[in-house]
Parts: sequence; structure tokens; C-alpha cells
Amino acid sequence: METRANMQQIVSHCKNYGFLFPGSEIYDGIANVWDYGPLGVELKNNIKQFWWKKFVWENENSHGLDAAILMNPKVWEASGHLSGFTDPMVDCKECKARLRIDELIEQHSKGKANPDLMTKEEMQNYLIEHKVACPICGKHNFTPIRDFNLLFATKRGVTEDNSSTIYLRPETCQGEYVNFLNVQRSMRQKLPFGIGQIGKAFRNEITPGNFIFRTIEFEQMEYQWFCHEKDAQKAYEYFKERSKDFFVGMGIPESQLKFHDHDKLVFYAKAACDVYYNFPIGWKELNGIHNRSNYDLTQHQKFSGKKQEYIDPTTNEKFVPNVIENSYGADRAVLAILCEALRYEQLPDGETREVMHFAPHIAPVKAAVLPLIKKVHAEKAHQVFKMLSCSFKTVYDETGTIGKRYRRQDAIGTPFCITIDENTLTNNTVTIRDRDSMKQEIINLDELLDYITKRVK
Amino acid sequence: METRANMQQIVSHCKNYGFLFPGSEIYDGIANVWDYGPLGVELKNNIKQFWWKKFVWENENSHGLDAAILMNPKVWEASGHLSGFTDPMVDCKECKARLRIDELIEQHSKGKANPDLMTKEEMQNYLIEHKVACPICGKHNFTPIRDFNLLFATKRGVTEDNSSTIYLRPETCQGEYVNFLNVQRSMRQKLPFGIGQIGKAFRNEITPGNFIFRTIEFEQMEYQWFCHEKDAQKAYEYFKERSKDFFVGMGIPESQLKFHDHDKLVFYAKAACDVYYNFPIGWKELNGIHNRSNYDLTQHQKFSGKKQEYIDPTTNEKFVPNVIENSYGADRAVLAILCEALRYEQLPDGETREVMHFAPHIAPVKAAVLPLIKKVHAEKAHQVFKMLSCSFKTVYDETGTIGKRYRRQDAIGTPFCITIDENTLTNNTVTIRDRDSMKQEIINLDELLDYITKRVK
Repeated sequence: METRANMQQIVSHCKNYGFLFPGSEIYDGIANVWDYGPLGVELKNNIKQFWWKKFVWENENSHGLDAAILMNPKVWEASGHLSGFTDPMVDCKECKARLRIDELIEQHSKGKANPDLMTKEEMQNYLIEHKVACPICGKHNFTPIRDFNLLFATKRGVTEDNSSTIYLRPETCQGEYVNFLNVQRSMRQKLPFGIGQIGKAFRNEITPGNFIFRTIEFEQMEYQWFCHEKDAQKAYEYFKERSKDFFVGMGIPESQLKFHDHDKLVFYAKAACDVYYNFPIGWKELNGIHNRSNYDLTQHQKFSGKKQEYIDPTTNEKFVPNVIENSYGADRAVLAILCEALRYEQLPDGETREVMHFAPHIAPVKAAVLPLIKKVHAEKAHQVFKMLSCSFKTVYDETGTIGKRYRRQDAIGTPFCITIDENTLTNNTVTIRDRDSMKQEIINLDELLDYITKRVK
Repeated sequence: METRANMQQIVSHCKNYGFLFPGSEIYDGIANVWDYGPLGVELKNNIKQFWWKKFVWENENSHGLDAAILMNPKVWEASGHLSGFTDPMVDCKECKARLRIDELIEQHSKGKANPDLMTKEEMQNYLIEHKVACPICGKHNFTPIRDFNLLFATKRGVTEDNSSTIYLRPETCQGEYVNFLNVQRSMRQKLPFGIGQIGKAFRNEITPGNFIFRTIEFEQMEYQWFCHEKDAQKAYEYFKERSKDFFVGMGIPESQLKFHDHDKLVFYAKAACDVYYNFPIGWKELNGIHNRSNYDLTQHQKFSGKKQEYIDPTTNEKFVPNVIENSYGADRAVLAILCEALRYEQLPDGETREVMHFAPHIAPVKAAVLPLIKKVHAEKAHQVFKMLSCSFKTVYDETGTIGKRYRRQDAIGTPFCITIDENTLTNNTVTIRDRDSMKQEIINLDELLDYITKRVK
């Protein structure tokens, strides 16, 4: 029998074991910012590398990119973020709290009303009709709705004129769009092809939360597929499958995923699908796949005055390519993997085992080297650590009983524990203990690196 | 005979072959921002992973971290950046240009005067005595010196009060300092130990430049070693050696590196060393190793009011640890590797071969799969691509003569070209051509993956 952890247990497990710490914690933090600790960064790196392999490496027509966070501000004019990337807010006239009206409505209606489908007027009317109270002071006296832009602005250079205002990118995909022709030309690439990128983005959101589900600084893994309009819808369907493969490939069961095709689309979009994961806080968005038509490149063509066209070398047709956008939240992927991994297992002896069932290739630590008796076996164990640590993240632990050391590795999801004992010194064998089955196997030390390498690939 | 490339050749090679593009290029760029293209991002990832392996994995007492870019602003009070992280500037009263006085002096004296050693008064006097002219308008009429802060500021939240001003971190190391106790506790780690981190930092510098040598957005690889004061100087010397190992391990000859110990130190520092690389633009700083005493943790203890002490479990001694800081610029490492790799080779037939001699484990692309005749060998070649691309970055190229395809791979530094020909179909063998020796070898297809994997490790 095993039980899943709830969100509070996950947050506290992550802090205790070094997956995630509140950002700037010794200064009482900074709201909704988290620092990845020693285990968190290894886990996140493994997820990013698996994504990169799947999307950038394993396709002949794929290329990576790492565009800067700081872009020419005209990019955000073209993308519409400067004018339209806003949250609707109201101020409480009594206590001066500033609140997102859509969240007020969602909370008040307990999820029954959907503010995404309402006009501003309808939202305003909802507040009045339902006498929605301020969650801070309980009064009902709001200003009219105003829009607040979510871009983080800063000043480039030391002069104070307006022309030097730049922004932290709110999404990474514009880096792929503005470099479409650079990549196409330098890689001598025919259509269709894809550009993949992993990087940070920033949104000045007022009410983020739920641990690392929504943070003001976050990491995206985005893959843009550029193709002819006639191939776009088929590619869109294909990438929905790829999304499933990606998550299932990291150990998330298909039953924990839901694909939701949008009914309501922005004017340029042809199709959009959100992939949901069954978080302990409910079904929430994990990634999105969008058929964006040729909107993005057309906008950049218009605002930059530079043609964003592709000429088909066979047909000589000249056109602005369509884009299928694949947007994955790296932090959300981490959170889903954490939620999926942490389990409390009832053992036959009545004890509860805290274990993280990471897929071995995603596990932050691959192997733990444990000398049975510190004074006798430490020297050999150090050698084994040295041998393994060139290839993957390994830990060395010599304190406490072997049983306790096993439990600690279970709690951080290390798939293999290697015990160095008398037999290692005399017969050159080690005991490997498997995290999931808890079974032990004796193998020759010379085979150890290969044994683990094969299983954590 | 082979010749090195100059900076201009490197920049243009990087643009043409997809290593680096000017940031937001279709909008005429954004000054001193660069986007990593398909080959650049693979190269940078390889360098970052090699560093991570060397510093975080291959040491029992090492842990990774990925702290957020956005930190509580008190961090920058404690670190001194809010008050002291400035560039000395003057305005030209004639043409209104704003200029860094240290650079004016350096350029005017052709490197003979060292403004780093001058007081503000001495710099001011230098301008007057030497009648230094404005490089823009040629006049000599400057304002007195003023200090400009290099932090990028932005506003958190939608209210306009001052308390919500936050900053983009100008260095990554503070993330390691403020998390010192989090890491120590969650990893149950005894002193001495290290925390490694790779991440972006931002500085609002007025006159950056020299390609990716100095940019306003850059990536650091930092390793902080926490230890007792009595062990600090020895650790400092040890990490100078580690720095050499790191660069030599990526194929930079020792003769291209110079270690410069500082004579003049900030008041809290015990020792500081800059490592220089012989760039085509001269000897320039690549990384720094600093013995910072217990200054950083003491400052954070003072400003946060939280004890930053370690208690030695054997001696019960309680103390604030010393820090040895190892700071590597990821972009500078990329630039050094690019400068070291690109060579123009005079072949016996008089032709010039453009080749990048990357160490195989650093090379952006490990293998190129080339069907000899597209119509006949493409199918088999696609299979070979599939087999290799799960393990490392591989390219597939079917256009042009084999000779031209070899040359293109030489120009991007691919260590191995694999030709699929008639023998592949009949005997299951492929021809492997080595980038450096240009020698060809015939091996069995079943051994190919292993053959390359071993050589690119």
C-alpha cells in the first residue's frame, strides 16, 4: 500500500532534502521566488536534458537556440505584449488592496463562473450584482477595472530618456521567431524544421503561487515548428503525441494526463491544446501546443520591415511559414515529477517508507556509495565514488547504520545504493540495492559502472 | 602551416555557421546582446556540463544550486552593490555624450596609465593635464566625475512605492552565500565543502563590447568553497590549479594562460588571482579565484540578523566560514574556446582548410552522417542518424559532394564524419573520417556508436 503526498508534504519534503528553498530565505524571502537546491538543480537539469534530446537532437530537422532574455523593445510591440499583456485589476477603496478581478470572481463563484469568457463589463457587473467582498477587509467598494501590464521593465544605459526602456522577456518563443531566418540560412535548412530553446522568462504577476507552479521568474522549454500552412494541422496533431511521449518517458502515467482542446481561440490561432496533469491541487496546465498560423512571423515582418519569407527550392513558392508552438514549463515539469515521485509506502513490518520513485534517468542522484564500516571500508568506497562520479551524480555517505542510509537515499529517490564491505576488499564485489524492489544483488566491481550507466540512460 | 583567426574573422565565422547571432537582429539589434545559435548553444552546453562535472560531481563535498535571478533587495545592500557598484562617468558638455572616465584615460594613454590605481581626483586631473578630447566631438569640456550604478532595477508588483524595487543580480555568487546554511543542513554537510552554480547575471555597463567578451547579459559558472580560516589559503592555491586543469581539459594549451596575482586587494580580501587567456585582442581575464575571508557571510549575518555560523562537530568551535570564490565567465570560456579552435590550414595542394579544432567532448556536433549518393544511401543514413542521435548531437547532410560536406563539417569542428556507401549496404561497414588527421577508417556499423561515444567523452 502506498499513498501520494499532498502539496504541503511535497513543499516540506523539498525544503528538508534540498530540492527547493524559498528564494533569499535569510531575508524572509521574496514572494513567489524559489531557489533550486542541490537535488532540485540535478533533477531540473535531467528533465531539461531529456527534453533537449527528445526535441533538438533526435530529429534531423531540429536546431537549438539560446536567445538573450533582453531583446529590442520592438519585439514586444510586434508580439502585442506592450499593449495587451495585462491583468485586469481593481483597487479596494477602503483598504487600498489591489486585486485581480478574475480571481475575485473565480473565488467568489467557487470556480463556477469563468472570467476568461467574460468581457470587462460583465466582470464589473458580476462584482456589483453578487456584492463580492474584498478578501482583505470584507468591504464592498471597488474602483473600476484597470489593466496592468505584466512586463518587467528596466532601463538600458545611464541616460533617462524613454527610448532606453527594455523588458525582461515574458516568454522565450519570440527569440525563436526573430531568429527564424538566421537559423534557416546558417543551417541551410529546408522547411519544415524546428527550433528548440530552454530559458528563463519573467512575468510581474500579482497572485502567483502554489509552490513552483506559478512564479514571477520561470523557465520555459519551447519548440517552434516552422512549416507550410498545408502541413500545419497534421504537425499540430503529431506534437500532441510527442508531448505525451515526453511526459510518459519521464514516468508520468498516461492516466495522470489530460488533453484539452480549446473551443475559444484568439483570432489568428487555428487550434490550441492544453495538457493537464493531475496535481495534488487539481488538474492544472503543464504544457500547451498551438497552431498559431503565420501570425508571429507576419507580425515581425510588419514591425521590422524585414521579409520573413521562405522560398521553396522545388516549387519556388514564396511564403511566410506557419508555426506550431510547443511550450513546456520546466518548473511545472519538475513539480509534476516531484508529485508523481513522492510516495509513502506501508511496509509489512508496519513502518512507513518515504520514497521518491523517479525514473532512473531523471533521478537527481544515480548512485550512493556506502562503506559498511567507515574505518575499514572508507578508503575503497572513496575509490568507487571517484570511478562513478565522472559519469553521473553520485553521493558518498558514511554516517549511520546501513538501514538509515538506505532510507535517506529512498527519500531522495536514488535508484542504486552500493555497499562496500569485506567482500569488496577480498573478492572485488559490491552489493547493489535497488530502490524500488529493495532487493540486493552482488556484482563484480569491474562491472559496476556499466551496470548503472545502462540503467540510468 | 596554420594560422589563427583574428577577432573579426571569428565574429563573422560565428554568424555564418550559426554559433552566434546579434540579439534581435531583425530589429537592428540591441547593443552588446548576442543570441547563441544552433552550434553556439551546443558548444556552451558542453562547456557548462564539463564545468559542472569537474566542480559539482567529481568531489564528494560539492553540491549544485540554481538560485533565482531575482533576489530580495537587501541582498544587494549587504553585498555593497546598491551603494558601491558604480562606474565613474563624465558628460561631454559640448555633445552631451556620457563616457566612462577610466576608458577615456586608458585609450588616451594607450594602456600606459592605469585608472584602476587612480583616485577620482587623479582621474579628473589626468583629463585636464593631458587635455583628453571627447572621442565623439573632439572637444575638451567635461563635467566633473559622477558615479553611475550598474544594477538593472525593475519594479515588483503593480504599486508604485519604492519598497517594490528589485534588481537583476549582477553576480550569481550571492545565491550561494545566502543558501550556505540551507545547503549545509539539507545535505548534512561538514566543512569544508563547495557550492557550484551556473546562471545568468546582468550589468548595465555603458561600454561593453568585443563580441561576447563583455555583454550586459552574461552567464557565470561560480564555485564557492566554504572552509575554516586556517585552510583558506591552501584551498586558494588548490583552486588555481583546478582552473588550469579545467581550461587545459578543454584543449587550451597552458602557454595561452597567464596567472596574475593581485598586488592591490580590497580590504577584506586575503588573496586574488586573475586567469588571463591570450585572446586575439590581447591577454584578457577569463576567470578569477579569490580568498574573500569571511566577509560575505559576515555581511549577510549583519544585514539579515540570522547567524551564519558553523559549529565544528569535533572541536565544537563556532565560526563564520571563509570563502574561496571561483568565478568563471561561461561566455568568455566559449569565446576562448572559439578563438583557440578556429584555424586556417594551408594544405599541400595550396588550398586553405577552415577548421575548428574543438576537443571532441566540447565540439557542438559530434558526428555527421553523410550518404554518398542521396538516392541510394539516404535510407540507411537516416537509420544511422537515428541510432547516434539518442546519444549525442549528430547532423545529417545529403547535399553536395562528399568533399564539400567534409569541409563544412571541418568548419564547424565536427570530429567525425561517417560516410554511408555501397559497403554499408552490402558489408555493414561505414567510413569514418577524422577531422584533425583527415584520415579515413572503415569500421563495422555495429561498433560505430561505441567508437564515437568513447572518443567524445
